[in-house]
Amino acid sequence: MRQSELFTKTRREAPKDEAAKNAELLIRAGYIHKEMAGVYSYLPLGLRVFNNVVRIIREEMNAIGGQELELTTLQSPELWKKSDRWRDDSIDVWFKTALKDGGELGLGTTHEEPMTALMTEYVSSYKDLPKYVYQFQTKFRNEKRAKSGILRTREFVMKDLYSFSKDEKEFRTFYEKCAAAYKKIFDRAGIGDTTFRTFASGGSFSKYSDEFQCVCDTGEDTVYIDEKKRIGVNKEVYTDEVLTDLGIAKAELKERKAIEVGNIFPLGTRFSDALGLRYKDEHGKEVPVVMGSYGIGPGRLMGTIVEVLADAKGIVWPEEVAPYAVHILSITGGNRDVSTEADRLYELLRENGIETLYDDRDIRAGEKFADSDLIGIPKRVIVSEKTMSEGGVEVVLRKDGSTTFVAESDIIGHLAT
Amino acid sequence: MRQSELFTKTRREAPKDEAAKNAELLIRAGYIHKEMAGVYSYLPLGLRVFNNVVRIIREEMNAIGGQELELTTLQSPELWKKSDRWRDDSIDVWFKTALKDGGELGLGTTHEEPMTALMTEYVSSYKDLPKYVYQFQTKFRNEKRAKSGILRTREFVMKDLYSFSKDEKEFRTFYEKCAAAYKKIFDRAGIGDTTFRTFASGGSFSKYSDEFQCVCDTGEDTVYIDEKKRIGVNKEVYTDEVLTDLGIAKAELKERKAIEVGNIFPLGTRFSDALGLRYKDEHGKEVPVVMGSYGIGPGRLMGTIVEVLADAKGIVWPEEVAPYAVHILSITGGNRDVSTEADRLYELLRENGIETLYDDRDIRAGEKFADSDLIGIPKRVIVSEKTMSEGGVEVVLRKDGSTTFVAESDIIGHLAT
Repeated sequence: MRQSELFTKTRREAPKDEAAKNAELLIRAGYIHKEMAGVYSYLPLGLRVFNNVVRIIREEMNAIGGQELELTTLQSPELWKKSDRWRDDSIDVWFKTALKDGGELGLGTTHEEPMTALMTEYVSSYKDLPKYVYQFQTKFRNEKRAKSGILRTREFVMKDLYSFSKDEKEFRTFYEKCAAAYKKIFDRAGIGDTTFRTFASGGSFSKYSDEFQCVCDTGEDTVYIDEKKRIGVNKEVYTDEVLTDLGIAKAELKERKAIEVGNIFPLGTRFSDALGLRYKDEHGKEVPVVMGSYGIGPGRLMGTIVEVLADAKGIVWPEEVAPYAVHILSITGGNRDVSTEADRLYELLRENGIETLYDDRDIRAGEKFADSDLIGIPKRVIVSEKTMSEGGVEVVLRKDGSTTFVAESDIIGHLAT
Repeated sequence: MRQSELFTKTRREAPKDEAAKNAELLIRAGYIHKEMAGVYSYLPLGLRVFNNVVRIIREEMNAIGGQELELTTLQSPELWKKSDRWRDDSIDVWFKTALKDGGELGLGTTHEEPMTALMTEYVSSYKDLPKYVYQFQTKFRNEKRAKSGILRTREFVMKDLYSFSKDEKEFRTFYEKCAAAYKKIFDRAGIGDTTFRTFASGGSFSKYSDEFQCVCDTGEDTVYIDEKKRIGVNKEVYTDEVLTDLGIAKAELKERKAIEVGNIFPLGTRFSDALGLRYKDEHGKEVPVVMGSYGIGPGRLMGTIVEVLADAKGIVWPEEVAPYAVHILSITGGNRDVSTEADRLYELLRENGIETLYDDRDIRAGEKFADSDLIGIPKRVIVSEKTMSEGGVEVVLRKDGSTTFVAESDIIGHLAT
């Protein structure tokens, strides 16, 4: 993409109404646009990052047997009354609306009920199980406050997977498989080192659930982390009794602020009982399906990457999520030959399938460098009179500023890796 | 995908509450699930088709310079009051909801207002224009009746592109470019032959708009088509005066029922005036941006393909939108060697990047054939004792039932084309 054609522009000044670093940087760099508190649009650069995060999650969910579908936002009360979650004191973040004829509807905050109801149409025998079904679906949550940028919003896409197993043992096997897939996702998203599997409350469904908490000073959650064992405990269950139960030594734990970037949750038969999801086992006996739910918000993950990896100059994207792999900067100093050479290089990279943003704008070099730092693409390629006279380009890594001179003949080999 | 692992199943009986052919077939074959009237989930097979339709549209929008973003569902009244479209008698299909603190919100039915407001932040000079911005975004429309399956729903994704041009001439050039892109989209989606560009009312914005109407007996619209010239006129503007104005001969027109699969719409300065989207021209004079909007609903397009191309046995997908390119049916007759051979073939196709659904279920041959007809994948590959003894497979085209015997050594070459 030629930057001169991109409709968004960077801005120097921070937006006045944003306290969160992720929103400030993402807005300044032209990744997102605030529609109202807690409601953000994704601009072209932002949508590219978002889609990369989605792709990583999708690949890992498919690898563990997930089947993708897409349920709806509009929810009729019927199903939710069966599980007693229609009441506003049961789920306190409902947005409700109404049909023309007056029938009340809700905007889905989560999808256990419709997913369970759907499965009753397809599951009747032990032969139909296990099944793992997921979606990337927009949730609506009527949050009272929304001041953490894209970390906590009123409208956001969630990857929610639901597991349907014959029994507790089969469920646990998948639960651990999904935990391992989550680890891969956070590794690929560049926050693996700072993300810990953390025991949390199981709510009314089970003893514990597991969260994936990314340590970060601006996080909303407080967790206690054993950095050697790479596990942790959420403050909400941090008691001597629980530590003993889990076999965790208090002395090894450090208190940290963290962002919950994922969670996996045993649901037992809470929803299969409420919605009648049963199957006949090998002896012909009807038993309820054992369920679990597994969530990751791609937008929150994207915001967390910004919070954790950004530096004083701007965003620093890890390779797999970056909007482009390479950012070409032409530093022409008014010399048209430099533009021509940069144009040629841009076409060469495109032909070789290297995703490239090309700053071909007629502006000062200093502005190009500042914008490039702010936007945070992993590899910057500088084309100037100087690099041309030396027969190559300068490649600068965004993450550490290290510079390498790459000869013309090595450019594709160097950038493709 | 092994069909034994797919969680959906086909059903023989038509759903009782569906009058529309598209919904009946798509539900029976396991493509969609009805949540309530006018609200459908997309199951794994359906999501694959839907995503293929989206991919076609995205490629053609990118090819004419479209930049993709994604705006939000939640809409605050502020912007819509500026254009006087917040009132329920101005847009009569609003779903409204409210924040916890009582502030009223709407669910976006269309996005001219937020898109125009967004552009005011990035457009100030003639150098910033033209720009073409689009999204695949979920619209909510509080339709009184919803009985046409996925052709008219209360919640649906729309591709809406908005053009921002310096003047009428620049706008018209893009308008025709987009019309040509739409033609390509409908060709690739397999309904090009039966889809006609049709003059329709321009509403309060301009004299005419253009619709793309796919001739179909179950369509809601009435159009008058000149089949030779491949143009038409919507009944809503079918008067002698309009025909004269357009230079269309009444004698050449035939009345037809049709489904509107796309529309392109001159907006003039209706929204740029209301929301203050102006730019400075080359003489420093401030003038309003000239806009247009361009819509296609991928779900409606998918439903139209079913309505138009299905036969008595089931759905017939064109190649570019089909959920899989090939459907392998193993007709084992209890012979394990046939299963082994079909397994091997399935792996071979996967290794060669041919997207394949493999009916490996232990059911009668007749059921497999009936399901395969219903599901409608373009190429069916039959593996049986007979084909094995002849050293190849039988390939049956869904669209015309024609059968070809393909020798083992030619299979990949034959199926990859």
